[in-house]
Amino acid sequence: MPLKIPDVVIGRLPNYYRQLTELRAAGVNTVSSQEIGEALDVTPAQIRKDLSYFGRFGKQGRGYPVDRLTDELESILGFNRHWRMVLVGGGGVGRTIASLNDGSFRPSGFDVVRVYDSDPSRVGNTVNGIDVRDLASIDADMREDPIEIAILATSGAVAQDIVDVLVRAGVCSILNYTSVVVQTPPGVEVRHVNPLLALQTLTYHLANPTDPLATR
Amino acid sequence: MPLKIPDVVIGRLPNYYRQLTELRAAGVNTVSSQEIGEALDVTPAQIRKDLSYFGRFGKQGRGYPVDRLTDELESILGFNRHWRMVLVGGGGVGRTIASLNDGSFRPSGFDVVRVYDSDPSRVGNTVNGIDVRDLASIDADMREDPIEIAILATSGAVAQDIVDVLVRAGVCSILNYTSVVVQTPPGVEVRHVNPLLALQTLTYHLANPTDPLATR
Repeated sequence: MPLKIPDVVIGRLPNYYRQLTELRAAGVNTVSSQEIGEALDVTPAQIRKDLSYFGRFGKQGRGYPVDRLTDELESILGFNRHWRMVLVGGGGVGRTIASLNDGSFRPSGFDVVRVYDSDPSRVGNTVNGIDVRDLASIDADMREDPIEIAILATSGAVAQDIVDVLVRAGVCSILNYTSVVVQTPPGVEVRHVNPLLALQTLTYHLANPTDPLATR
Repeated sequence: MPLKIPDVVIGRLPNYYRQLTELRAAGVNTVSSQEIGEALDVTPAQIRKDLSYFGRFGKQGRGYPVDRLTDELESILGFNRHWRMVLVGGGGVGRTIASLNDGSFRPSGFDVVRVYDSDPSRVGNTVNGIDVRDLASIDADMREDPIEIAILATSGAVAQDIVDVLVRAGVCSILNYTSVVVQTPPGVEVRHVNPLLALQTLTYHLANPTDPLATR
């Protein structure tokens, strides 16, 4: 892979992939950057540029081969693999997340296989059929059976401490449900899925509706 | 506001704001771009550039005045206002979202005030003390009492249809909990807070760990 691929490009690839799987399911053989772009509200030029990071697909004027491009994106994005995850936090949010295992996560290759909590009243319970383990055992568990993806569904007050524990235990991808923006060393990726953080990026546009130059 | 402000800059402002409120609470009067940057893993140059969109704060070599910068960001971001929201979807995810009203949303100026569902078995129930209304009444309700922010917590299958309804009813900011990337007309902002979408942007890094040029 000769070029450094910006995160913003990687962030768009799953959208292209979803669009392509729909086209493939509909029996479409080739698709133009314009057709992909229309459905996703991205310019054709942007799509061609994004996909060019991953080598040459398709020929000028003929469009992209749907099958080959889908397979290629699936492999690049790791969607053809099975990803095991640990969940930290066995409270209400944790239970909602664990309940996504069957209908949402597993069909897409993700699976919460261990749940941790440090609250003695929760340790030993089950969450969607998974035993809640003591967070104190995570280091030992990870040495025996490493898992790279963690979902953080604790209170914000302990978020950074738990992230430090997770990173020491070898986790390198974290899905953060708390409202705390946590710090991680280079190589550890964090995604925030907190509604408050997301809402706080929406109000700028609402608070500044008369700005005629505002970007979408 | 003379310059077009990129969404990526607006996305970083809440982080600066949170950092500044902590400094203000700790009694700090001035702060350098370097100090803000260290805590947030952003370069000082980036911070100076981001803040320069909003006019001149502070003097060369003296740092930013914490109080004034915090107030300014609060006003720019609309955090000094009260934002009412509608929630569509009174199922499990909807109930979890509504339960955020007391501890998370309201202290930050957000408030779910109406809940809608189209399932007759849910209409008439209450969710965190809020009556679940029939989605069919949303147009009339919005004419009488307009609300600009909606949270979408339905199944993905109906997501786009409901977004179309919301947009027609005057909603211009949508927090989307479904795994469907919905389309909206210009001027309507959408944020996705779906764990699967977020996970799918993490696996690229896990699937390509040996790429020495990969960006963080």
